[in-house]
Amino acid sequence: MKFDLKITDPKSKARAGVITTDHGVIETPIFMPVGTVGTVKGVHQTELKNDINPDIILGNTYHLYLRPGLDILEKAGGLHKFMNWDRNILTDSGGYQVYSLSGRRKINEEGVKFKSHIDGSTHHFTPENVMETQRTIGADIIMAFDECTPYPCDYNYAKRSMHMTHRWLTRCINHLDKLPYKYGFEQTFMPIVQGSTYKDLRRQSAEYIANSGQQANAIGGLSVGEPAEEMYAMTEVVTEILPEDKPRYLMGVGTPINILENIALGIDMFDCVMPTRNARNGMLFTAHGSINIKNKKWAEDFSPIDDMGITGVDTMYSKAYLRHLFAAKEMLGKQIASIHNLGFYVWLTREARKHIIAGDFREWKDMMVKQMDKRL
Amino acid sequence: MKFDLKITDPKSKARAGVITTDHGVIETPIFMPVGTVGTVKGVHQTELKNDINPDIILGNTYHLYLRPGLDILEKAGGLHKFMNWDRNILTDSGGYQVYSLSGRRKINEEGVKFKSHIDGSTHHFTPENVMETQRTIGADIIMAFDECTPYPCDYNYAKRSMHMTHRWLTRCINHLDKLPYKYGFEQTFMPIVQGSTYKDLRRQSAEYIANSGQQANAIGGLSVGEPAEEMYAMTEVVTEILPEDKPRYLMGVGTPINILENIALGIDMFDCVMPTRNARNGMLFTAHGSINIKNKKWAEDFSPIDDMGITGVDTMYSKAYLRHLFAAKEMLGKQIASIHNLGFYVWLTREARKHIIAGDFREWKDMMVKQMDKRL
Ligand SMILES: [Zn+2]
Ligand SMILES: [Zn+2]
Repeated sequence: MKFDLKITDPKSKARAGVITTDHGVIETPIFMPVGTVGTVKGVHQTELKNDINPDIILGNTYHLYLRPGLDILEKAGGLHKFMNWDRNILTDSGGYQVYSLSGRRKINEEGVKFKSHIDGSTHHFTPENVMETQRTIGADIIMAFDECTPYPCDYNYAKRSMHMTHRWLTRCINHLDKLPYKYGFEQTFMPIVQGSTYKDLRRQSAEYIANSGQQANAIGGLSVGEPAEEMYAMTEVVTEILPEDKPRYLMGVGTPINILENIALGIDMFDCVMPTRNARNGMLFTAHGSINIKNKKWAEDFSPIDDMGITGVDTMYSKAYLRHLFAAKEMLGKQIASIHNLGFYVWLTREARKHIIAGDFREWKDMMVKQMDKRL
Repeated sequence: MKFDLKITDPKSKARAGVITTDHGVIETPIFMPVGTVGTVKGVHQTELKNDINPDIILGNTYHLYLRPGLDILEKAGGLHKFMNWDRNILTDSGGYQVYSLSGRRKINEEGVKFKSHIDGSTHHFTPENVMETQRTIGADIIMAFDECTPYPCDYNYAKRSMHMTHRWLTRCINHLDKLPYKYGFEQTFMPIVQGSTYKDLRRQSAEYIANSGQQANAIGGLSVGEPAEEMYAMTEVVTEILPEDKPRYLMGVGTPINILENIALGIDMFDCVMPTRNARNGMLFTAHGSINIKNKKWAEDFSPIDDMGITGVDTMYSKAYLRHLFAAKEMLGKQIASIHNLGFYVWLTREARKHIIAGDFREWKDMMVKQMDKRL
């Protein structure tokens, strides 16, 4: 992987860069649509590529490990080939999903034992076997196995957990050294900063992660229920410390506003299920605010879904039609809303990039944050 | 509407024709995808147009009447505009759907009283108000309000019902005379032959319908559970009588084999929910037989879904990937299978047309019927 930092905004810490991997170029800042189990829910690969047009998508190690399973992924020649996606993929390490199985998982120094949400079968994730799993899935960017702490989190628990995540990092790095790439292309490994909402822990973790000398760095354990101000405070502390010349990925964030604010704090990469999950519930994000398309007020509004027309669906269908699809519980409604929201998220980060390069990011961001805060 | 009968197969009663309406040309034989409530389930209008590519689709009066309702459809300027589909649409009369609400509907000479499957509210369909409803929905071809009898059906019930359908036809025709078109284009009205599985009743009904002098004629009350041989026998009796120079539509039929056999008996138009309903259950139709994609045998089959590549999805995704989507209950699986099956059905009728024109329909049909009968 190669990262070229093209420009840093003089009035914020926003950056525009270019990541180059064996699967092509990723212009940052970037939003990565979540393709949980080898599919961005409800979205065809053609629509993803041509309409939403991200440089990179995300896959979930936990879900892919369970279904279709490593055997099939390996026989397919990796996730790119299995799902027919030839651009970049990043896989998380499963830490967050496994953590979310509260009551069905046990964490200790060795790793995490958990019961599958599908059939209750018992599995064991360790830093070592998760690296093997990610080699087999075959994403371009793979993540360290970490513990994601909840919010709020007791200081002592957060501290102990952070140190374990650091020890797990060493085990990940040592084990990866012994594991060659499987499909003829490179995989870039990202360590993850933890430390809950404690500035001193975040600082300590950021320093540890920075010193591990990897090619890119991530921030985990945020967007887990804390107020946005606490999230921003943590990002700020961490981006002060993480090296400037390496990409920074803030995991699992967030609303369109969260994304712009974190770009302003020096984040380059984002992922979140919010655009697709909210889409399936009829919630649309637009540059002028959010829309609950199930609301009766749209029943006779025959104007386009979004006259900005970022994706094809935005001007192909009317608000009244989309509302009807949700009222009638027709799957096409979820499909349309998913494409719209993902297209909007990717557009938003690309547009941020343009404004960083143009030098007016700060003004644009402040204007957009105000606009997007509205409910239409 | 204009119908040009181009050619009749010398070795069967199959015909190739061209219907021309204000929304364009319909080459027959044709399969019409079912767009129940203003959407072909799981299929974007772009995919419907570019990939599946039918000349005409079907809408259900019963469903559209309940949701979005006539008020919204009228304000939208009719169904074409509401759903953004600029080719032909045919609406059924709601007779079949209302009939299917057994226990929740009461039929008498005046019409049918029924309770909505959505909220239990009471509604009344009569030959007159269903014509008004279809004027408002605004399809290019609209259907008579009829009673669809069950299978098996007592002879006397079938006979009484057939005569009521005939009386209702007169009421439809008389009322339509008073109802101008609403959206500036013509609507063609089709009467429906009934008579259950009784040849004498079918003959009687076909004569009555033929004598009503409409521009196109339909056969209803088949594909309701009777053996295929009985269906074919009824089609044969009826197509003997219906005028040659007018299109013939066999409602609600059927499997790919049913379609080819009925084309051989002189049918021009078909509709059926089978391709989409079965798709959502993981059942794929191909020229070489049917596939249950949920079957474990496809788990590691990385070959294309259908190497004939009739639609884009057929070669874009592998069988193993599609099976995985069904195993993981991902909506993309239903979307892919729906496009595949509809594309196949439309291809099948277009291919039949080519072979009718080429003069080798009979041999091709016999070969296809044999092939398609297999389970892969
Ligand atoms: Zn701009
Ligand atoms: Zn052929």
